[in-house]
Amino acid sequence: MNRAVAIPNNAVRITDSFWSEKIKLIKNEVIPYQWRALNDEVEGAAKSYCLRNFRLAAEAIKMRSNGETVPVYPTDKWEYNESNSEPDSFLGWVFQDSDLYKWLEAVGYLLQNEKDAELERLADGAIELICSAQESDGYINTHYSINNPASRFTNLRDHHELYCFGHLAEAAVSYYNATGKKELLYCACRFADFICKTFGENGIKGYGGHEIAEMALIKLFETTGNDSYLKQAKLFIDRRGTKPYYFDTEQGITSRDGLYYEYNQAHLPVREQKDAIGHAVRAVYLYSGMADVAANTDDKELFEACKRLFDSITNKRMYITGGIGSTRDGEAFTADYHLPNGTAYAESCAAIGLTFFAHRMLKTDYNSKYADVMERCLYNGILSGMAEDGKSFFYTNPLEAVPSEIKADSDKSHIKTQRQKWFTCACCPPNIARMISGLGGYCLTENESTLFINLYCSLEAQSTFGSISIQSDYLNSGRVKISVKSDKTFTLALRIPEWSRDFRFSKENPFIKNGYAYFEINGCDEITAEFNPQIRIISASNRVRENIGKASITRGPLVYCLEEADNGKGLHLLRLSPHPKFSFDGECISANAYRAEDSGNALYFDYKKPKEHLERIKLIPYYKWANRGEGEMQVYIRM
Amino acid sequence: MNRAVAIPNNAVRITDSFWSEKIKLIKNEVIPYQWRALNDEVEGAAKSYCLRNFRLAAEAIKMRSNGETVPVYPTDKWEYNESNSEPDSFLGWVFQDSDLYKWLEAVGYLLQNEKDAELERLADGAIELICSAQESDGYINTHYSINNPASRFTNLRDHHELYCFGHLAEAAVSYYNATGKKELLYCACRFADFICKTFGENGIKGYGGHEIAEMALIKLFETTGNDSYLKQAKLFIDRRGTKPYYFDTEQGITSRDGLYYEYNQAHLPVREQKDAIGHAVRAVYLYSGMADVAANTDDKELFEACKRLFDSITNKRMYITGGIGSTRDGEAFTADYHLPNGTAYAESCAAIGLTFFAHRMLKTDYNSKYADVMERCLYNGILSGMAEDGKSFFYTNPLEAVPSEIKADSDKSHIKTQRQKWFTCACCPPNIARMISGLGGYCLTENESTLFINLYCSLEAQSTFGSISIQSDYLNSGRVKISVKSDKTFTLALRIPEWSRDFRFSKENPFIKNGYAYFEINGCDEITAEFNPQIRIISASNRVRENIGKASITRGPLVYCLEEADNGKGLHLLRLSPHPKFSFDGECISANAYRAEDSGNALYFDYKKPKEHLERIKLIPYYKWANRGEGEMQVYIRM
Repeated sequence: MNRAVAIPNNAVRITDSFWSEKIKLIKNEVIPYQWRALNDEVEGAAKSYCLRNFRLAAEAIKMRSNGETVPVYPTDKWEYNESNSEPDSFLGWVFQDSDLYKWLEAVGYLLQNEKDAELERLADGAIELICSAQESDGYINTHYSINNPASRFTNLRDHHELYCFGHLAEAAVSYYNATGKKELLYCACRFADFICKTFGENGIKGYGGHEIAEMALIKLFETTGNDSYLKQAKLFIDRRGTKPYYFDTEQGITSRDGLYYEYNQAHLPVREQKDAIGHAVRAVYLYSGMADVAANTDDKELFEACKRLFDSITNKRMYITGGIGSTRDGEAFTADYHLPNGTAYAESCAAIGLTFFAHRMLKTDYNSKYADVMERCLYNGILSGMAEDGKSFFYTNPLEAVPSEIKADSDKSHIKTQRQKWFTCACCPPNIARMISGLGGYCLTENESTLFINLYCSLEAQSTFGSISIQSDYLNSGRVKISVKSDKTFTLALRIPEWSRDFRFSKENPFIKNGYAYFEINGCDEITAEFNPQIRIISASNRVRENIGKASITRGPLVYCLEEADNGKGLHLLRLSPHPKFSFDGECISANAYRAEDSGNALYFDYKKPKEHLERIKLIPYYKWANRGEGEMQVYIRM
Repeated sequence: MNRAVAIPNNAVRITDSFWSEKIKLIKNEVIPYQWRALNDEVEGAAKSYCLRNFRLAAEAIKMRSNGETVPVYPTDKWEYNESNSEPDSFLGWVFQDSDLYKWLEAVGYLLQNEKDAELERLADGAIELICSAQESDGYINTHYSINNPASRFTNLRDHHELYCFGHLAEAAVSYYNATGKKELLYCACRFADFICKTFGENGIKGYGGHEIAEMALIKLFETTGNDSYLKQAKLFIDRRGTKPYYFDTEQGITSRDGLYYEYNQAHLPVREQKDAIGHAVRAVYLYSGMADVAANTDDKELFEACKRLFDSITNKRMYITGGIGSTRDGEAFTADYHLPNGTAYAESCAAIGLTFFAHRMLKTDYNSKYADVMERCLYNGILSGMAEDGKSFFYTNPLEAVPSEIKADSDKSHIKTQRQKWFTCACCPPNIARMISGLGGYCLTENESTLFINLYCSLEAQSTFGSISIQSDYLNSGRVKISVKSDKTFTLALRIPEWSRDFRFSKENPFIKNGYAYFEINGCDEITAEFNPQIRIISASNRVRENIGKASITRGPLVYCLEEADNGKGLHLLRLSPHPKFSFDGECISANAYRAEDSGNALYFDYKKPKEHLERIKLIPYYKWANRGEGEMQVYIRM
């Protein structure tokens, strides 16, 4: 099997005008805002209780170690625990710890690229608090440490201890790579060691209900070289879905149907899984871990399963925005080609997870389709999750929204037409923060002979072949200049974006394979690529029932949408002209469309060809929707 | 205000080939089947417990009157009470009594038209049981008589005592009109008297959470002439939605928002209500009662409210099948023009209730639109509720069904693709039975000068103007012959169906007003009407988002649909040809359509005009769908 590695975020400095602005937003708006949210200091926002829980846990651990008695509370409720009559019990969701870890991971990525003493001081304080909430055996989870340490690891299916561990480990690696400080890494490794002891070959045969520990263990392995972490990740992967179902065993149930565990992707051994299934975020986190383990253990069979699952998602179960999860019920995948626009779940976190998965796949399978999917997610279904001012967030990312219908129809109660400041279940905002702040780590990969350019952000990076600089006008002209300063001979592989129909390179005769153009480089060199983004009309498969007779508009990596703010109410009345006469103003697209005139007051009447009039419509990038007040939005337009 | 009265079912004998067959089905299949269901004798069907509850209640009442102690059980659960550890407590839904009443009402209608000693004996036995379950003060409700008589009338909002009373009264009137036997009528009047005492001018200021008592009291008033029943109905109507909200008062709540009571239509005084709202069955039952009270008290203001609400439904919130209720959430109306095809609730009972409402309206407002709506419901959204063999039933009646998506998408979990034998909440099957068996009562109305023909079933009837005979070939040629044997001079008003574009009468120069053709009749006469049903392509308002660019096909009163059994999978791929070359085989319609060829395995690709091929498609009447196994169904087709 191939093995490329990512050039890490700390070796990449994003200089891209588009993305730098987003990263700056994360740094200046999101991170401070989230810090206040984690500290319950944002007025009107749902309380996080996150920092409060860490403080309480630290205190409880200290008291117990001093032999003092600490009250015990129930640990059976995984949903948001409201402020109640027990002032010292755990509050919030059982996975609330992970929000701080994600915040720290994002801070790590930011510090990797730009020193900030004040931010580092804040993070160090948080890390100190985390470490003080670590039990003497290495275990950390404030829910159990506060409420009842005796019942830890009794409900792996629902209680997210392994999930929180995963986020702790990812934060630790990020912060270590930023600062060289080892406190959090040491803390994460101590917990990892405890997990290896508890769930190792001869330990409990369990695995996490919400996957992430698998890929996090690989990060620790890659950072520390300790191969017990790799072994443990492989154990988690290989055990999943085998019989007897561990989640039954821990609940004392003997006869549950495996289908019950589709939600957790634990219905079948992972190598036998063919369709992307269940909770979409969990699914892609699992598949990411599988790809990691496959790559690190040269496990072709496991990697084949990953390829199958990637194809299942991207060929049959993914919105054009990179959104995944067609239903709110279990925030889950449903069936092939079932991609309803107005009830899509398409959680921001799920598009992020799909990016993780794609990023792992491209390290082993040198095919541009993986980076195409990363790009699709990043520019559309992930970025739409955050307001342009960085102050509010979407959890779900529908492809169609009509405020009056959403109000009237509780089947759409999960769809918001305005981003929210924070959520009781606030997984998405910090996930977006860590994704965007760590973007540098997703752009380039390399193996012993080849440097791959997967994403075309403007950047400066250090590879083993030398330094590389990308100057990108990707979203506008599609022109990208790659400059290499090297004293070596190597191959430079430039991804040809799937949307580029008319690409040209300044250097001649590339070898083209699986969507990459390969150039032989000898020392310093410069290649200009022209990808020539065109405005394109894109059909969905006509197996997607809801989109038959409709199409969407894209330009380069961006999916476009119609908004009421530009086009008035009744977007469904619009039909793209067969001669749309597209124009592009550097950001928005204009086109000719026919608007059906209101058919009048009759509800039913003899069909006649609808009266229409021609008008000029305006489309904006999908990720920008809902930044100008509440209104209708629609990605697909009638043809 | 105008005042026509219905020629009652016992003065009308349906001889129609179409409807006689349905009535025969009710008599030979549905009634015996339901009797077994009510007695918990149908294997594999959900248990009713209905008769069992009546027996238990009778016994409890007897024991109490003998001074024996009867155990008390909780009465707070209105959902289906499962067989539990308390063998003698009430089981089933709190409104389970009404199923027996509806069954009896249907039996009454059948016996009105055809004597059947065996069926009458069965009904007499049921009536004896009902009467034995009546408390000494007239109250009947097995839930409270079994579980705890002390807490009766403490939860009018949810506990259906007034609802069950309403069905008792309707059954009593039907059975009395069939047999002249007064036992059940007397029983219902005793309960009605008790209700008048309890909820009269100086009594409790309550009203039922599920309306029906209002129209039932009017039936008792019309049957007995006792005007305290009319007064009580008016009180219920006038109190509804006034402040303080009675439903708050009874719950000891002081500050609930009126919007909370939209579900029960108790958010506003009824005269101020403008939009049809809340639980659709409740709504149309209320509006029926309002129309009754308005007519009987010459209350123009109230009747204006009825007209407004009728228009709200039929101009903005009604499926083309006559189905109402756009969401499963509260089985309720949603917003104007929000009529999703695949998640429609469109409960069979709601279309029945809309027929009740329309039938009451046409007695006061001589406009054909009301009978048009009755006809729309009867031939489509009501009849679809019952299988062709009378052995299974639909609760919901969607306009589109794709089995694979329904399985995958829990937002459609209320949609069934096969009718079910029975339901735990079995309101629909006996409601369909009483509707169809009582059909004769919906056809004709009369006032002092005019006999109105509202529905064109073949029938023989007695009016105050003489006997009337209709020979109808309505569904086929649209020819209807009306023969009158009379010794009087009067006006005969023939409704012109809204679908008839090319109608002719054998008698010349009718006066046409509001959709009725008025003929002066002198003694015996005969008129032939030719309504010439054509196959029509019908558009929904383009304010109905989901149906833009689509249309449905109708012929006469029947809405047609596509089924997989005739047209294969992928009905969404079909597009009606602009030259459909319709043909009609006496029942089904064939047409030319283009089928989009499968677009291949790519999920997203550059738009090109889809490849299509011409084929002949077959449409069947909507009410017949799902009688040939599971498959796709679609009412609207792309244009």
